[in-house]
Amino acid sequence: MKEIKIRRSVRSFEDKLLSDKELEKLVRAGMQAPSARNQQPLYYIAINKKEVLKEISEKVPGYKMVGEAGGLIIIFIRNEEHPAPKQTEQDASAATQNILLEATHLGIGSCWLSTFHNEAKQEAISNYFKLPEKHLPAVGIALGYPKDKDALKFIDRYNKDWVKYI
Amino acid sequence: MKEIKIRRSVRSFEDKLLSDKELEKLVRAGMQAPSARNQQPLYYIAINKKEVLKEISEKVPGYKMVGEAGGLIIIFIRNEEHPAPKQTEQDASAATQNILLEATHLGIGSCWLSTFHNEAKQEAISNYFKLPEKHLPAVGIALGYPKDKDALKFIDRYNKDWVKYI
Repeated sequence: MKEIKIRRSVRSFEDKLLSDKELEKLVRAGMQAPSARNQQPLYYIAINKKEVLKEISEKVPGYKMVGEAGGLIIIFIRNEEHPAPKQTEQDASAATQNILLEATHLGIGSCWLSTFHNEAKQEAISNYFKLPEKHLPAVGIALGYPKDKDALKFIDRYNKDWVKYI
Repeated sequence: MKEIKIRRSVRSFEDKLLSDKELEKLVRAGMQAPSARNQQPLYYIAINKKEVLKEISEKVPGYKMVGEAGGLIIIFIRNEEHPAPKQTEQDASAATQNILLEATHLGIGSCWLSTFHNEAKQEAISNYFKLPEKHLPAVGIALGYPKDKDALKFIDRYNKDWVKYI
């Protein structure tokens, strides 16, 4: 499938914000992902405002590239009881992968900024948004039109030593 | 993107095995997934032999449906030092989601059988395969041609209460 083949991490973006419609398409792709026991435990913040992107890039460790991005989606684990709480990290990851592929489909570059297991990042994001529900920051996805027009291209990562066919 | 929209968990399969070529396409899709620091920490076992599927369905708790499936891919975390060991669960999940979407693209149904955080499943899989490298079982993916011809269809999971646009 083309999008799976050509998706690559893009860290350098054109100076152009994503449209509201593009952001919504990406969030919709995330919400279509499977989740353990269909618990759908995620919450999304989707941003395409330059000043907010700039502020986040300054305040969240490891999020510097977000200052030059055209958008950012942050996925949280909702602060609720979930039927399969140990599987929420997998749920957030499946949603993230859907968003990366939908972005590729739209010609938008993306970079997965893992935020799980990093308290400094999680605290900085929580402090910035001050969500009353205290959802847990899980993953950030930097988005934008690639500066390098050739950024989305197939690099074969298949390694026959890492698979056994039976 | 069509595949993201119509992918659903499929648990009931036609009596038809996946071809070797289909299995390889699915493993290739998994290996194209991003990983933290590009560590690519995964190992795959891909199966399309009826007697092996039957045996696994009897020996691994929660894998009963595999006995009727046309294929199974098990993803392991390779038993090595990885640069970002805390992120390997996310890496395995991204690869899994790629495989589910590639399967959808090929008209193949799939079901994510989480194996992380479940020692009984992990032990049963390890005992069955006796891999000398002792890789850690992470996720199983049951695969097959859907019995219900209408299984892969769009069910809208968008919920506007779970997103904030800024």
